[in-house]
Amino acid sequence: MRIIVTSNYEELGQLTSDYLFGLMLSKQNRMNLAITAGKTPEAVYKYLVPKVKEKDYLNHVHYYNFDEIPHKVTKTAGITRRDLNQLFFIPANIPTGQIHPLDENNYLNQDERLANDGGLDAILLGIGADGHYCGNLPDTTSFEDFTSRIECDERIKNRIKVHFAKAEDIPDYYVTMGPRSIMSAKRLVLIANGTRKAKIMKEFIHGKITPEIPASILKMHPDLTVIMDEEAASL
Amino acid sequence: MRIIVTSNYEELGQLTSDYLFGLMLSKQNRMNLAITAGKTPEAVYKYLVPKVKEKDYLNHVHYYNFDEIPHKVTKTAGITRRDLNQLFFIPANIPTGQIHPLDENNYLNQDERLANDGGLDAILLGIGADGHYCGNLPDTTSFEDFTSRIECDERIKNRIKVHFAKAEDIPDYYVTMGPRSIMSAKRLVLIANGTRKAKIMKEFIHGKITPEIPASILKMHPDLTVIMDEEAASL
Amino acid sequence: MRIIVTSNYEELGQLTSDYLFGLMLSKQNRMNLAITAGKTPEAVYKYLVPKVKEKDYLNHVHYYNFDEIPHKVTKTAGITRRDLNQLFFIPANIPTGQIHPLDENNYLNQDERLANDGGLDAILLGIGADGHYCGNLPDTTSFEDFTSRIECDERIKNRIKVHFAKAEDIPDYYVTMGPRSIMSAKRLVLIANGTRKAKIMKEFIHGKITPEIPASILKMHPDLTVIMDEEAASL
Amino acid sequence: MRIIVTSNYEELGQLTSDYLFGLMLSKQNRMNLAITAGKTPEAVYKYLVPKVKEKDYLNHVHYYNFDEIPHKVTKTAGITRRDLNQLFFIPANIPTGQIHPLDENNYLNQDERLANDGGLDAILLGIGADGHYCGNLPDTTSFEDFTSRIECDERIKNRIKVHFAKAEDIPDYYVTMGPRSIMSAKRLVLIANGTRKAKIMKEFIHGKITPEIPASILKMHPDLTVIMDEEAASL
Repeated sequence: MRIIVTSNYEELGQLTSDYLFGLMLSKQNRMNLAITAGKTPEAVYKYLVPKVKEKDYLNHVHYYNFDEIPHKVTKTAGITRRDLNQLFFIPANIPTGQIHPLDENNYLNQDERLANDGGLDAILLGIGADGHYCGNLPDTTSFEDFTSRIECDERIKNRIKVHFAKAEDIPDYYVTMGPRSIMSAKRLVLIANGTRKAKIMKEFIHGKITPEIPASILKMHPDLTVIMDEEAASL
Repeated sequence: MRIIVTSNYEELGQLTSDYLFGLMLSKQNRMNLAITAGKTPEAVYKYLVPKVKEKDYLNHVHYYNFDEIPHKVTKTAGITRRDLNQLFFIPANIPTGQIHPLDENNYLNQDERLANDGGLDAILLGIGADGHYCGNLPDTTSFEDFTSRIECDERIKNRIKVHFAKAEDIPDYYVTMGPRSIMSAKRLVLIANGTRKAKIMKEFIHGKITPEIPASILKMHPDLTVIMDEEAASL
Repeated sequence: MRIIVTSNYEELGQLTSDYLFGLMLSKQNRMNLAITAGKTPEAVYKYLVPKVKEKDYLNHVHYYNFDEIPHKVTKTAGITRRDLNQLFFIPANIPTGQIHPLDENNYLNQDERLANDGGLDAILLGIGADGHYCGNLPDTTSFEDFTSRIECDERIKNRIKVHFAKAEDIPDYYVTMGPRSIMSAKRLVLIANGTRKAKIMKEFIHGKITPEIPASILKMHPDLTVIMDEEAASL
Repeated sequence: MRIIVTSNYEELGQLTSDYLFGLMLSKQNRMNLAITAGKTPEAVYKYLVPKVKEKDYLNHVHYYNFDEIPHKVTKTAGITRRDLNQLFFIPANIPTGQIHPLDENNYLNQDERLANDGGLDAILLGIGADGHYCGNLPDTTSFEDFTSRIECDERIKNRIKVHFAKAEDIPDYYVTMGPRSIMSAKRLVLIANGTRKAKIMKEFIHGKITPEIPASILKMHPDLTVIMDEEAASL
């Protein structure tokens, strides 16, 4: 595990984009990258988009998402795809052929598909204040699980409702790559910023591996890089 | 995780030696390999020794051990080194310069040394009927630990006394690479044979990741190969 | 470059099959391997076939060929595919989905296809007494060439006619991965046996990089392993 | 080979520093990097120095040089070391323990040392208008050569005299990693800028592999990235 503390959130974005862009440049053959939506990576994409936008020499980079929350009624792409489109795929003008969505229809095939595509070279991950990562919330998946469908009880529906304009669209389930799937990638990059993440980052760095903090298992990966700003590292 | 079930113990030895020898042949620069003592690997070394003995083209292979039980009184090498000498280093005539012992004097430096040597390319591991691997016995190390010194209480002394000719030599402590150190290697190979291992292998393959079964964490490694004979796989 | 000299041709076959099989075992995700037809690898396949035959745990291994000589009239597979079928694919019962033929119809797409599949992890190559490898005969391709179609003049037709039962089937062209394509693989394994190869192996090991000996360029690959028997190494 | 054309020299510096810095971030264990002195990389170091300066998380990066021109009389470091100190090592405050000089005293051991250190992960290279790279000038080394000592005739003395304040210091020889040593690295990055390099870059990209243009052999490396500005790419 390598831990990098940046002076501020902007530098976190810059450094993480350097990591990802450097990795793209240093691979000649197909590179498979899973990226995250959410608030934390906004600065990452701010710096990454101009580096990769319409660069022919990056057409070996293939993009994957690691979870998806479908709309229950409205027939549009899920929340993750919608957010990744806005944050990265549309501004960076990534060709459709290089985007490989995970969704509620194909999730059972995700692990086999990834192995056949050569495996993920890297995953960019965030961490929640509750220790969740991807769709691995406390009391959903177990460390042993591969890509899974998670049934949404009221507690989970309550957590995800913020993503939906219409309450009727809150789904009864979502899909996520499980801990085993995530740990199968060659490299993991975990980013965290702000004082709101200080407590969980202290626990992540110094605490136990425990199912109560799903992200704690990521410490066991042979190639994990943690990039956080001073606020997240303040405790 | 890849699981390979061989028809018998001999085939386990042959296939595991093929794995290790093939890896040696396919690396041009320095290769770092940690190997295990004990009963299970005897068939591995039986097939590996003639392949590597006095082969100049394998002088890029460097050997490490991952634990050591020192003698308390007698001033000789520890139990692991003694057994590896007998099983492999002496019959294969490995040059001393390619052997990098871990012992009670240098264990605090083991993780840094390995990183500086380029990291371990592979570790060959056994598993105990109680789920231990290396010196990571139940109630000794935690998943979070790097290379550690383990104090021996009566329970542990009782377990390790079989290795010692004189009772006075049973030590008050031993050293072992911890779960984090083991998980830092590029590849893990776990071998198991015999009906005596059938119960633990069933738990290992199908069970939970739990500190009560120390080896259970190894399932989370992105590059784990399990090789066992039909007896070990019988449940 | 690593040079391995075996006592005899049988040992060459055994050691080369160990190299390839070990590489298969040590890759968890898709592995891409290009293999060669001809006389030299017969001993390799003799040892490799039982190791890989109907092994479910090797379904991540994908096979490619690097050249093809089509029949001009008869509507059957080309010479290389026919020979690889006989030598390896049929006896080892390799599933069709893991075989990716190069032929006269798809050769223009070969380099891009390989890059998109993740690149070749290894190529097994022979060498001719005239210094050719794959379809790179003297005065056909240049070092700079990627996968190419080679027009057959009388000299070349004379060389390849031995492969054909009917003279009318000798084609006007064949296809081959060029030097640049071959050098793009992660690892190269070059095998040679018998006194008939002694002269070219001496030139290969000690001589100049020159277009007159097409294989001489292979010495510049960062991960080349040469395996030859004592007869081939006798000069 | 991947070819990247940047709009200008500044962007070349930025992108090349991104490549190198990204590679550093994405390696957990020891990384070995050989870098170049000269005019072309000035913009690279301008962007790289602030990224790596006094960053504890980069103490796994080890630096090598690939050639050295000693002073004949004055007892100071050679020209390459002097220039790398000024351009990079001193402004970036790289710890001495991470710098591994090649010089006239240890060059015979350079290839073995590198292999034992795990091999070079990358080499940053420039190219001369005459097609030279490192100390591989036309009519000095052959493609087959490893690290070598080159005797300086009048032609060479004339070329290198510009580096020396006192004529008496122009040496009778210099040392350089040869083509085989350079091609042994895992990755090569070749940079070129300015109209003065346009002719050689055209020849490099489109021309033959020939000893008359020493750098032409680099095209055969499986992992070469060429980064040049529009001026260098103008022909």
